[in-house]
Amino acid sequence: MALYAIIAGVGPGTGATIARKFAKAYPVVLLARNEDSFKPIVAEIERDGGRAFGVAADVSSRESLNAALSTAEKSLGSLDRCAAAIFNASARPSPKSFLELSEQEFLSPFTVSAQGGFHFTQAVLPKLLNSVGTDVKYPPTLLFTGATASIKGSARFAPFAVAKSAGRIMAQSLAREYGPQGVHVAHMVIDGIIDLPLTREYMPDAKPDALISPNTIADTYWYVHTQPASGFTHELEIRPSAEKW
Amino acid sequence: MALYAIIAGVGPGTGATIARKFAKAYPVVLLARNEDSFKPIVAEIERDGGRAFGVAADVSSRESLNAALSTAEKSLGSLDRCAAAIFNASARPSPKSFLELSEQEFLSPFTVSAQGGFHFTQAVLPKLLNSVGTDVKYPPTLLFTGATASIKGSARFAPFAVAKSAGRIMAQSLAREYGPQGVHVAHMVIDGIIDLPLTREYMPDAKPDALISPNTIADTYWYVHTQPASGFTHELEIRPSAEKW
Amino acid sequence: MALYAIIAGVGPGTGATIARKFAKAYPVVLLARNEDSFKPIVAEIERDGGRAFGVAADVSSRESLNAALSTAEKSLGSLDRCAAAIFNASARPSPKSFLELSEQEFLSPFTVSAQGGFHFTQAVLPKLLNSVGTDVKYPPTLLFTGATASIKGSARFAPFAVAKSAGRIMAQSLAREYGPQGVHVAHMVIDGIIDLPLTREYMPDAKPDALISPNTIADTYWYVHTQPASGFTHELEIRPSAEKW
Amino acid sequence: MALYAIIAGVGPGTGATIARKFAKAYPVVLLARNEDSFKPIVAEIERDGGRAFGVAADVSSRESLNAALSTAEKSLGSLDRCAAAIFNASARPSPKSFLELSEQEFLSPFTVSAQGGFHFTQAVLPKLLNSVGTDVKYPPTLLFTGATASIKGSARFAPFAVAKSAGRIMAQSLAREYGPQGVHVAHMVIDGIIDLPLTREYMPDAKPDALISPNTIADTYWYVHTQPASGFTHELEIRPSAEKW
Repeated sequence: MALYAIIAGVGPGTGATIARKFAKAYPVVLLARNEDSFKPIVAEIERDGGRAFGVAADVSSRESLNAALSTAEKSLGSLDRCAAAIFNASARPSPKSFLELSEQEFLSPFTVSAQGGFHFTQAVLPKLLNSVGTDVKYPPTLLFTGATASIKGSARFAPFAVAKSAGRIMAQSLAREYGPQGVHVAHMVIDGIIDLPLTREYMPDAKPDALISPNTIADTYWYVHTQPASGFTHELEIRPSAEKW
Repeated sequence: MALYAIIAGVGPGTGATIARKFAKAYPVVLLARNEDSFKPIVAEIERDGGRAFGVAADVSSRESLNAALSTAEKSLGSLDRCAAAIFNASARPSPKSFLELSEQEFLSPFTVSAQGGFHFTQAVLPKLLNSVGTDVKYPPTLLFTGATASIKGSARFAPFAVAKSAGRIMAQSLAREYGPQGVHVAHMVIDGIIDLPLTREYMPDAKPDALISPNTIADTYWYVHTQPASGFTHELEIRPSAEKW
Repeated sequence: MALYAIIAGVGPGTGATIARKFAKAYPVVLLARNEDSFKPIVAEIERDGGRAFGVAADVSSRESLNAALSTAEKSLGSLDRCAAAIFNASARPSPKSFLELSEQEFLSPFTVSAQGGFHFTQAVLPKLLNSVGTDVKYPPTLLFTGATASIKGSARFAPFAVAKSAGRIMAQSLAREYGPQGVHVAHMVIDGIIDLPLTREYMPDAKPDALISPNTIADTYWYVHTQPASGFTHELEIRPSAEKW
Repeated sequence: MALYAIIAGVGPGTGATIARKFAKAYPVVLLARNEDSFKPIVAEIERDGGRAFGVAADVSSRESLNAALSTAEKSLGSLDRCAAAIFNASARPSPKSFLELSEQEFLSPFTVSAQGGFHFTQAVLPKLLNSVGTDVKYPPTLLFTGATASIKGSARFAPFAVAKSAGRIMAQSLAREYGPQGVHVAHMVIDGIIDLPLTREYMPDAKPDALISPNTIADTYWYVHTQPASGFTHELEIRPSAEKW
């Protein structure tokens, strides 16, 4: 296959809008634990004339991830040259007192965000490096979705904060190692509640600008992807205009 | 006049490229201490079919700034509705041992960055607020140019660091006060040496991606301007891919 | 005079407790804009067998500061060898909308914190450097009192945030320049409301640990002063245990 | 047993000096993976009239940790009331290109720092909470040893940075949850190379103040432990005076 984008963690919210945005420029490979998460957006992209391939994968397992990539290659041909890879997988644990956490509850957000991010990076980074200096329009890009918890450890949120700060500092280390080799690595701090039908149900009175739009997130990811090597953004924040911070 | 953009601190580098970029969408009002700083870019924009008006002003003086704005209004008509205001003025002091600094040397970068930023903000913010909720395509935007020194106080750089960190925290305070009122305030951390003919002379062996391109900076400013209220970036970094950080 | 400590910004709160603490080890020179601010603590220290000399000074003016130091030297003898210098002067402006600030209101906290800190540092740093490698028990120390506003620009607090962040980044620059020369420079982030009779009046229901004790602050300043060159703290936070942060 | 301190990660360097320092005030329980790590300091403390009990434990395993605590209780009596708990365990991986890391290499520093820190905290926190409001001289304290990597992800250091930033943000979350309940949680950023016989061998020409002294670290831990609830430090940095930062 020609250049493509790959997105891990494609659900009905941010992942789908990122997929829709990047599908305007590249065929997209979409990963999610459950097929139901990516099926609607795959169908939508194909209907609109784009090209999308979804495959179920548990990114926290190297075997599962590699099997998914093999499946994708059988359908799409070689995935050797990647244009953009986006790690958007995340657990969303409920707040809980530290002393009440089981080991499993402490570790599971990390397993997705950090262990998953590790496997995803090791799988896609060689394919991003392959694209450097070829006929790509933009520097090959690896983006990580962060959160407020990436930079702040709130009470009763230790497992999520540990997981998200791991993604942040891993992105920083990768940017320092692979930026000079031509791969653009960046960490996106999404600070706010994302505007989804489900969120609206719980917050029926939220003003329009109190929630962060997935489309705005997707546009910002795309913009960061288009930055040339003469000016990389390695971290930025996005939050709705009415958010307290 | 209709909507316009105003840029303070227009020299041959970043200021000129920002002016060029925003002139594609708006008439631009360009301020600099000396006319020679903005004359070439005013001429270039007009030649290319855009509209630019340059006027000399010392932003650290409210009187000088107000006089410049009056002059501009005489030529352009009312400046009541501003689309984007960019504060790019800055002193560039040489490194110096703290004990050798005169009071004047300690204060002068602050006078430009912070006192100038204060006057500029008080002058343009009402005109940005006037535009909120009108037929603007993008939320009215106030951008501050920052630097590495905005977040790090290096040895022998106290005056510059004091000045730039003042700009940063002022932008943060403004974003928190006026963001919920619809004005997008952001601080841009430019971390690296800007790629200008003068810089190239001093660093003839610099690799292409070791310096940060003014065009990339301008593109990023424009992108931040276009973000909707459902997802504002309040701070981001830009640096060349080969920069150590 | 032998080794001494000097404290700028001595009022009834933190300044007085710092003076009391350091007076157990050194004669102390106490500066405040008004004599009434330091008279009670000078009397108390003298009564308890310590040695204290208060002198009125406006630290934002080099002339006023130098005149005060000359006055002190006439009484105390040479102030050539300083053990510890503490910059605790600060304005406490009320919150105010940015657009309603006068230039004077914007600048006056900076004039005290940054311009005052500049003059104070230039006056005492040579006297601290003189003490390096002599018979001092602890490395000569220069401490700056910071606040939450040193690191966060809250809405309607721009002048205070500009002033305090200036003190912070100036301390950082000084630590990097003069630390390797043997002077310990540190910035102390006091995050919380200080427990004073006046504060208690306004917050009669505050729990004991909801306010930060000036004695704890003073103890922490003293501890940082006693650190050897093999382990300097350059920044720390202090807040009451019940503070939200 | 009466009040005691417990330290996880006791080797010949920082752990031993912390043990020595806290043993002046409390019986100390010392944990390390290998007995050889704590035997010399246990012997030294006992010889000097203190009380120390060492027991081998792998803190990353809840079972191993609990077994060690049971063993200690058999010798010492109930460990129900803890005065201070210090988590100093850490892996020290060599720098390595991200793409060359095995999953094991990526995870093992995290297993020690974060998973170990989780088990240690869950084991000791109830014993610290038990001491709140009793006849303790100082608020019960839980300290985490951090590093430069806690706040910066350097190239080729991702596993260590992930591990140490996890410890940092976990400490922050704990401080916010348990500080208001009276337990003092703090994170100590040790920024620099620690002055040990082994380090000196590799850096025979290092100046005295280019390395950070374990004793200074221990003194700082002790100081933070002694802070009253009216002024807690939740994070501080320590580095040698000649360190670049």
